[in-house]
Amino acid sequence: MFATNLCFSQKQITGDQVKIHNVVIQLNTADTASWSSVIGNIKNIQKVWPNNLNMEVVVHGKAIEFLVKEKTYFANDIQMLSLQGIKFNACENTMRKHSINADMLLKVAGIVPSGVAEVIMKQEQGWSYLKSGL
Amino acid sequence: MFATNLCFSQKQITGDQVKIHNVVIQLNTADTASWSSVIGNIKNIQKVWPNNLNMEVVVHGKAIEFLVKEKTYFANDIQMLSLQGIKFNACENTMRKHSINADMLLKVAGIVPSGVAEVIMKQEQGWSYLKSGL
Amino acid sequence: MFATNLCFSQKQITGDQVKIHNVVIQLNTADTASWSSVIGNIKNIQKVWPNNLNMEVVVHGKAIEFLVKEKTYFANDIQMLSLQGIKFNACENTMRKHSINADMLLKVAGIVPSGVAEVIMKQEQGWSYLKSGL
Repeated sequence: MFATNLCFSQKQITGDQVKIHNVVIQLNTADTASWSSVIGNIKNIQKVWPNNLNMEVVVHGKAIEFLVKEKTYFANDIQMLSLQGIKFNACENTMRKHSINADMLLKVAGIVPSGVAEVIMKQEQGWSYLKSGL
Repeated sequence: MFATNLCFSQKQITGDQVKIHNVVIQLNTADTASWSSVIGNIKNIQKVWPNNLNMEVVVHGKAIEFLVKEKTYFANDIQMLSLQGIKFNACENTMRKHSINADMLLKVAGIVPSGVAEVIMKQEQGWSYLKSGL
Repeated sequence: MFATNLCFSQKQITGDQVKIHNVVIQLNTADTASWSSVIGNIKNIQKVWPNNLNMEVVVHGKAIEFLVKEKTYFANDIQMLSLQGIKFNACENTMRKHSINADMLLKVAGIVPSGVAEVIMKQEQGWSYLKSGL
């Protein structure tokens, strides 16, 4: 009985620290103002939850160049955010369609088989969803 | 006891087959590039889950002509996807506002009283949400 | 046993009245057609659930002038909808960035520390999400 109560108290005390905020952002527009907005949103969310944010940006369709080394305007931001734990994943379906291979992506970028399926699966796992676009 | 365990094992073995992916897509833009993108996204998701996808496209507001026979550029795709089980539903509020009656819609189109309420209710039932728009 | 069944029956009878529909709308575009569309969507949803709608519009980024007295085209609608219980909240991060102080907002507007974090937290609490944008 004593042990159980102790355990419960500890969970309450550390509750704020252990609550992870899981967020999937869908980026599928060619509009670079939307790209910039997504970067800004991520930085704002990081300030709110510096230690308990689990965020994945799924890049597909007309946004794919956001993760292409020779095309993106946001390489520095993406690399810095990746170091801080934000995941950036390119859609393999889109890459195939646009003849983009893995070597052409920023080194920090991951690849998922289907961008839209990824966004769906994360929601199924309880992640919050943010759609990019202005 | 034996029967229970057997049942449990069967559920595990067939788990991947029976998991249905419920997805509601909100299409409310006049931008035909977004219409095309939605069609492409659906086809990609179908390849990922050919046997366990339950998807509804809710068409309302400025997108309503997507489902109007004399206006849409995507009649063939919509009809084919409908045969494959994808549902396309027009918003009755929007139809009234634009003086569109049921006869003017593609035959495969369904009608829901309120497009936005439909999108909300599907999320309440645990469906994943995809917002169209580029 | 009798009491339990009675209670269950009452819950069924009043089930439709007590089910609250919680909805968060993210408005982050400068496009005033999207502002108008959000106003129209809210009015449509109110007709569907006149007595059991709990809705918050989170205004941030390029949409912030939607809630600025001297800038918005929708002051009358926003004030009327506020009286009817719809909440409109401005993002404090955006206000700081655009040098907008609380006095410059419509009186009915609330303020949240981070617009995107607010949208995420509402989803975590089970609210449905609608992204604005056409």
